[in-house]
Amino acid sequence: MTKKIAFDSNNFTLSSGKSIFPLEIAYETFGKLNKERTNAILICHALTGEQYVSDINPITKKPGWWDILVGKNKPIDTSKYFIICPNVIGGCMGSTGPTSINPKTKQPYGLAFPVITIHDMVKSQVLLIDHLEIDKLLSVIGGSMGGMQVLEWMSSFPKRIKSAIPIATAANHSSQNIAFHEVGRQAIMADPNWHDGKYFEYKIVPEKGLSVARMAAHITYLSEMALQNKFGRNLQDRSIKTFSFDADFQVESYLRYQGINFVKRFDANTYLYLTRAMDYFDLISENGGVLANAFNDLKASICVISFSGDWLFPTSESKKIVHALNAKGVDVSFIDIESNKGHDAFLMDEPDMFLTINGFLQAQFDK
Amino acid sequence: MTKKIAFDSNNFTLSSGKSIFPLEIAYETFGKLNKERTNAILICHALTGEQYVSDINPITKKPGWWDILVGKNKPIDTSKYFIICPNVIGGCMGSTGPTSINPKTKQPYGLAFPVITIHDMVKSQVLLIDHLEIDKLLSVIGGSMGGMQVLEWMSSFPKRIKSAIPIATAANHSSQNIAFHEVGRQAIMADPNWHDGKYFEYKIVPEKGLSVARMAAHITYLSEMALQNKFGRNLQDRSIKTFSFDADFQVESYLRYQGINFVKRFDANTYLYLTRAMDYFDLISENGGVLANAFNDLKASICVISFSGDWLFPTSESKKIVHALNAKGVDVSFIDIESNKGHDAFLMDEPDMFLTINGFLQAQFDK
Repeated sequence: MTKKIAFDSNNFTLSSGKSIFPLEIAYETFGKLNKERTNAILICHALTGEQYVSDINPITKKPGWWDILVGKNKPIDTSKYFIICPNVIGGCMGSTGPTSINPKTKQPYGLAFPVITIHDMVKSQVLLIDHLEIDKLLSVIGGSMGGMQVLEWMSSFPKRIKSAIPIATAANHSSQNIAFHEVGRQAIMADPNWHDGKYFEYKIVPEKGLSVARMAAHITYLSEMALQNKFGRNLQDRSIKTFSFDADFQVESYLRYQGINFVKRFDANTYLYLTRAMDYFDLISENGGVLANAFNDLKASICVISFSGDWLFPTSESKKIVHALNAKGVDVSFIDIESNKGHDAFLMDEPDMFLTINGFLQAQFDK
Repeated sequence: MTKKIAFDSNNFTLSSGKSIFPLEIAYETFGKLNKERTNAILICHALTGEQYVSDINPITKKPGWWDILVGKNKPIDTSKYFIICPNVIGGCMGSTGPTSINPKTKQPYGLAFPVITIHDMVKSQVLLIDHLEIDKLLSVIGGSMGGMQVLEWMSSFPKRIKSAIPIATAANHSSQNIAFHEVGRQAIMADPNWHDGKYFEYKIVPEKGLSVARMAAHITYLSEMALQNKFGRNLQDRSIKTFSFDADFQVESYLRYQGINFVKRFDANTYLYLTRAMDYFDLISENGGVLANAFNDLKASICVISFSGDWLFPTSESKKIVHALNAKGVDVSFIDIESNKGHDAFLMDEPDMFLTINGFLQAQFDK
C-alpha cells in the first residue's frame, strides 16, 4: 500500500530557487528493514513509472513495472532487502506535482508548479530516507530517468549510499533526446484541450496530444530490430491493404494502442515537467565540463549497466560514466548487455541484468 | 516555369482500383532535349519536395531543393542534359492531389482523393514521358521517396530507362519508418482544425498537427551526431536555463522553426497521402518475397548510393537492392558514402555523391 509522508518544512528550495510547500512524497516499501538498518535499497522510477515497482499495480491491476526483478526470491529479493520506491516529485501518483492542489488557489497547480530537476527529485528522496531513519542505503538502483537519479545520488549525496546501479542512462541528455522530448511537449501543447495547462478547469484532458507524445516516445524505447522482429510489415487483422488511413499495419495498431492506454494512466502536465527535468539534467556542464568532478567524494561501489541495442541511451553514454568513475578511482564494474530490444530492455526479462544485479547486491550486502 | 499537362483519358486506373479524372501533372524542365531525344533525365522528388529542383523556387524564393546538384556546369549539367522534374500525383504543387478540385463536388478532394501508391506516381510519369515523346530516359534519379520511384521505374518500366540512380532509399519501408509516419499522421488527425480532412471548408489549416508531424520527421532526417555537432546542449539566446517550457535549447528552437515553416508550404492531407504511399511501397512482398524478381527484365545500368550516417534508410537497405540486382546479373555499381549528416545527406553538399552521379551519367551518355 502506498504510504504518504508530508514534510512540513517550508524551506524545501528547488534548483530554480522556488520552493514547494507542502511537500508530499508517496512511496511503497517491500520487505523489512533489518535491525542494523543496512539492507535498504532505493529504486528510482523512469519517466512514466511510479512507486508500484513490485506486486500488483493497484491502478492498472497488472504486475508492477519491475515485478519480474523485485520480489520474494527474485533477483532483488524482498525477503532479504528492504525496498523503497517513491514517486518522484513532479510526478502524478501521489507525490507533489502539477496535479496536486496548489494551496494558494485550491486548484491543481498545472503550470504554476515550479519546474523541477533531477537534483530536486533526489533531494526530496533524502528527506524520505531521513524520515525512515536510514543513514546509508545499501544501494540505489534505476534505469533511464531512474538512472539519472542514481547518478545524482552518486554526485550529490555520495555518503548516503554504499553502492549504486545506474542502468541505461546518461550524464546528460543528447541533442536528439531533447528533440524527441520537445516533439512530445509540442504535441501536448498543440492540443486545444490542454488550455495552457489548465485543462482541469474544463474537466477534460488533452488526450490526443498526450497520445501522440507517447507514440513518438515509444518508438525511441524500442530498437529498429525489435520493431522489425515484432511487427515487420505485417498487416493487422486483414490480408490486404485497405487503401485508407486505417491502421493497416500491426505496428500502427500497436502504437495507437500504446497512446490510448497511456492517457488513461498519466497526466499531460506531468509529462511536460518530467521530460523537462531529464532535458535539464547535466552532470557534465554542472562540473565544469569534466564529468569525473561529479564524483569527487564518491566511495561507493558502482555497477553500470547498458544495452547494446539501446539507441536512446546508447552504450557510449554509459562508457562516459565509467571513464569518469575510473578517473576518480571509484570501484566500478561495467556490463554492456547484448540485446536487440532497445532502451526498454531494462524493463524486460534480461537474464544477464538479473544475474548482475543479484550478484552485485549480494556482494555489497556481504561487505 | 512550371508547365502543366492534363491527360483527358478517363482510364488512369490506380493500384487501389479507383481512377482519377482529370489527371494533371505539373512539371519543370531544365536544359534542352537533343535531336536524338537521348539526353532526358527524370528527377523524382522526395516526400516534401516538388518540381522546383533547380534555379529559384518561385514560392520560397530560395534555391531549388537540388540546385547545388542540378544546373549549368553542375554535376547534373543542364547544358548537356534535359531535366524533367514532375510533382508527384497526390502532391500539392500542381499535380492532381487532395488539394485539387474534385469535379464531382467542385470542392477540394480532401480525403475523397483515392489513396495512391509509388507505382501510381511512376505510371503517371510514364504518361508525361510519352507526351514529351521520349522513348527512353537516359536516367531516372531520386532520393528517399524519390528513390522508391526510381526503383519502381526499374521494376515496372525497365525498357523505358537506360540507367537509374536510387539514392538513400529502400525496397520497402521498415516497421520503424511506418511507425514514425503513423505518429505524423496521428498528429495531423489529432488537430481539431483538420476536420476529417475538410479544413478547406472552414478556411483553416491544421497547422499545429502538421507542425508536430514535421518536427518528429525532421529528427529522423538527421543523424544523432549531426544534431549533437550542430546544437549539442547549447542554449538559445540565453546563458542560463529559464526553468520554463520556453525553447531553452537551440535544438528545440530549431525544431519549432522547422515545423512553423513547413506548414507555410505544405498541405496536411497531402502529407497523409504521400506518407501512406511510402508505407505501402513494397517491392519485396509484391514479388513473392524475392526482391530480385522485381528486376527480371531490367537491362539498364544502375548506380545505388547510400550514406553511412543514414538511420532512416540505412546502408543495409541499399545493400539488399544491390544483392537483388546482382542476383539478376544487372550492371550495378554501389557506393556507400561516409557521412555523419544522416538521411538528409542526399540533399546536401556531398562531393562524393556529386562526383559519382556526374561520372556515372557521363558514362551512360557516352555508351
